[in-house]
Amino acid sequence: MQLTARDIARIVGGKLIGDPDQLVTGFAGVREAAPGDISFLASPKYASAIKTTRASVLIVGNDLDITFAGTLIRVPDPSEAFATLVGHVAPPPIVFETGIHPTAVIAETVKLGQDVSIRSHAVIEDGAVIGDRTVVGAGSYIGHECRVGSDGRLYPRVSLRERTILGDRVTLHCGVVLGADGFGFETVDGKHQKIPQVGFVEIGNDVEIGANSAIDRGRFGRTHIGNGTKIDNLVQIGHNCVIGDNCIICALVGVAGSVIIGNQVTIAGQVGIAGHLTIGNKSIIMAQAGVTKDVPAGAIILGSPAVPHKEFKRAYAAMQRVPETLDKFHELERQLAEMRVRLTTTS
Amino acid sequence: MQLTARDIARIVGGKLIGDPDQLVTGFAGVREAAPGDISFLASPKYASAIKTTRASVLIVGNDLDITFAGTLIRVPDPSEAFATLVGHVAPPPIVFETGIHPTAVIAETVKLGQDVSIRSHAVIEDGAVIGDRTVVGAGSYIGHECRVGSDGRLYPRVSLRERTILGDRVTLHCGVVLGADGFGFETVDGKHQKIPQVGFVEIGNDVEIGANSAIDRGRFGRTHIGNGTKIDNLVQIGHNCVIGDNCIICALVGVAGSVIIGNQVTIAGQVGIAGHLTIGNKSIIMAQAGVTKDVPAGAIILGSPAVPHKEFKRAYAAMQRVPETLDKFHELERQLAEMRVRLTTTS
Amino acid sequence: MQLTARDIARIVGGKLIGDPDQLVTGFAGVREAAPGDISFLASPKYASAIKTTRASVLIVGNDLDITFAGTLIRVPDPSEAFATLVGHVAPPPIVFETGIHPTAVIAETVKLGQDVSIRSHAVIEDGAVIGDRTVVGAGSYIGHECRVGSDGRLYPRVSLRERTILGDRVTLHCGVVLGADGFGFETVDGKHQKIPQVGFVEIGNDVEIGANSAIDRGRFGRTHIGNGTKIDNLVQIGHNCVIGDNCIICALVGVAGSVIIGNQVTIAGQVGIAGHLTIGNKSIIMAQAGVTKDVPAGAIILGSPAVPHKEFKRAYAAMQRVPETLDKFHELERQLAEMRVRLTTTS
Repeated sequence: MQLTARDIARIVGGKLIGDPDQLVTGFAGVREAAPGDISFLASPKYASAIKTTRASVLIVGNDLDITFAGTLIRVPDPSEAFATLVGHVAPPPIVFETGIHPTAVIAETVKLGQDVSIRSHAVIEDGAVIGDRTVVGAGSYIGHECRVGSDGRLYPRVSLRERTILGDRVTLHCGVVLGADGFGFETVDGKHQKIPQVGFVEIGNDVEIGANSAIDRGRFGRTHIGNGTKIDNLVQIGHNCVIGDNCIICALVGVAGSVIIGNQVTIAGQVGIAGHLTIGNKSIIMAQAGVTKDVPAGAIILGSPAVPHKEFKRAYAAMQRVPETLDKFHELERQLAEMRVRLTTTS
Repeated sequence: MQLTARDIARIVGGKLIGDPDQLVTGFAGVREAAPGDISFLASPKYASAIKTTRASVLIVGNDLDITFAGTLIRVPDPSEAFATLVGHVAPPPIVFETGIHPTAVIAETVKLGQDVSIRSHAVIEDGAVIGDRTVVGAGSYIGHECRVGSDGRLYPRVSLRERTILGDRVTLHCGVVLGADGFGFETVDGKHQKIPQVGFVEIGNDVEIGANSAIDRGRFGRTHIGNGTKIDNLVQIGHNCVIGDNCIICALVGVAGSVIIGNQVTIAGQVGIAGHLTIGNKSIIMAQAGVTKDVPAGAIILGSPAVPHKEFKRAYAAMQRVPETLDKFHELERQLAEMRVRLTTTS
Repeated sequence: MQLTARDIARIVGGKLIGDPDQLVTGFAGVREAAPGDISFLASPKYASAIKTTRASVLIVGNDLDITFAGTLIRVPDPSEAFATLVGHVAPPPIVFETGIHPTAVIAETVKLGQDVSIRSHAVIEDGAVIGDRTVVGAGSYIGHECRVGSDGRLYPRVSLRERTILGDRVTLHCGVVLGADGFGFETVDGKHQKIPQVGFVEIGNDVEIGANSAIDRGRFGRTHIGNGTKIDNLVQIGHNCVIGDNCIICALVGVAGSVIIGNQVTIAGQVGIAGHLTIGNKSIIMAQAGVTKDVPAGAIILGSPAVPHKEFKRAYAAMQRVPETLDKFHELERQLAEMRVRLTTTS
């Protein structure tokens, strides 16, 4: 990216205040910006960040009252203007040409939809079905009898074990593993015998799953991810979980087996959920919580073991007062002892 | 799956109560079941789940006293009957044909056992040895001088760095990485110099390792996983750990370097164990615990920092009483002040 | 490894006390050692470990006063002697021959430096540049327009999405994913619309990234890892993070989006850092901490939510006293009630 502040003011239709020849070589948030970057201020409440920003050019609202040593571009809606600019100069997205790379290994009984793109070294096993316009990235593995919907984007090196089902418009980032065996053993005389995991994984429409996340197949029946649910990187979902629609599951979350999660549930980073629990619709589980009980719909919980938000806050506030109260307590003991002496003397 | 309740009653040798023509299209646990599913009740203590199940057909014990709107199949042992049914209708397991796929790249000095199956795009480097009947999945990488035992199942896209040793009947799920360099640096003037990691990873017999888990090679000598130990997905085992036989290690656990773990130890999800500790036989470390001290044999510990189960419970119960006690404490202060006034007045 | 104690004494120039014919077959730390292993004692403070070690031979300092049933080799500097021995008998490191394996798929517009080694089934897309002497491991994927520096070591099965930039001397362990989309969605009527992630990942010089770790591309602009920073396995770094030079980030850490981390910061295992925070230079974040506020330079913090070290210790010590104090508190209440009765009686 090589634009002057003048070019940018023209692109976003803004009013330039400062040096029109200031060269802009990158984008960044106000706090992350380095010299040469352009940034923007979406809301006046972040105005204090301007004092320390290293950005060379800022896009701000027409009415914002600020002092800034660099160059300003004033617009009615800074967020929209910034998006316009990004859209204007962002590199074009990578388009994978349709067709089958000669190094891909596709079994004879595979059914490929219209305009698929099967990339180099991809492997598709017998009986699999790939929907129209789906991209199967380089080095990806689609196991026997999988069914992948249309308009899917499977980035390089994803692995779908046999009989995994994907809906339409599913995005799987690099390293995703769907359908590995559930972690199920029966312990006999201290040794762990494998319980056969003969189920499968079923992913709804419009689901996105982050890099190196893993979702295990059902012991029997399905492990299910509902439509529109978005899963971040390095997440573990155990066998036979049933996750609803439009949930958000952040990085490094672990969900044990047979957990039922409702719709529009938000699970923040590094949360752990014990097996066989039920998590209600629209509940929010805050970062690093350890969930050991069912969660009612709409609840906000945190802590390990997790408790409702209000309870945690009350307990946390109380904890803060403990050290000081312990000191006061000893003073009280002293006073009481003193009074007893006086009382004994008096009576 | 397309069976009537009548078919199923016949398969499991049960007594049908309800609609013999009820169509069954899937399996599920009582809580996860959707209409069309069959489920079962292993124990009367879960009978309350029947009130809310959406299963269409239930397999229950002969003597269980319940009300259920759908169709029942009564049998002497519901758990066994369900296993019979699953075994009857589960799809056949995938069998990988023996032989070497033409796209596999196998160095000249590799020794392959009888009836191995080397799948497409697998890579096996010089000096490696693969035991009889072992499957090396598509896109897997077996580094130089690795020794893989017999009857192994390496799913697609596992990576074994050089000189890794696997016993017999080892299962590695997709994305497993064995033998990456240990995380060892020496910091000189604020810069981190790499300490060479010239050891290796040695995995015993009958070990199973979950998707995208990573076990680092020793700095020198081995990182060892004992016979029969089962490791879940996304687990990190540091360099030079020595883990005993028949342990269970759940998802997202992190074990730092040089930790010694005994036999039959259970480590629940998201536990972290600091370096150079010793964890005794048959101890149990509960979910999300942060282990900072040696753990005696047979101990049950939890919390971060982790403490023995009883101590945690006592502390936790005390915590629960803190907010209320703080209120009482202020009342006590008030009373004491009042008494002092009276006592002063009196004396 | 097959050496006698006599051989080893000669290699390290030490004085042998015990059985010169004792066979040594491996290396290990004092605590992990098995019979046949040689170990060493770097510091007298670990001397107690000698009582329980199973090592057959020990390298110790000339002056150390110990009793050991096995064979001793005395040297001036045990740590150095052990390194000499390891260097002497460690297997030679694997060298990947330069050249391009015939199964690699390299787009026409790729620019390869001198003496690169592109291994089997690697894929390099259009417009990518690979620096001199860099090894691209088997099955690795280098996306469109990536720029990889010189002397890089990309182990098998890493994935670099389009436009990722690596400095010189970068080591990526197996399964690393750089440049997957950031986890950014805008929620409209309960549905999550994808925010385009048009930025990229930029890695400095001398960076090492552990197995199966993931670093997301910027929403716009860069996600940056500074020179000399070392990242362990299974770490998640969110979009637009800017991480400084010479940091240490341990396994299973999760850093949310747009976090700014200074230089020489140490982040222990399983730490979580919330989005948009600033972490000061040389700060230390202890294991499993949950960081919810900016961290000043030089601070040591721990806990979830994380607090400064001293505050945590004070609070933790106070907590330890709570159960006992609660008991005393009830005694105090009793005494006060008793005194009130006496006071009433008296007055």
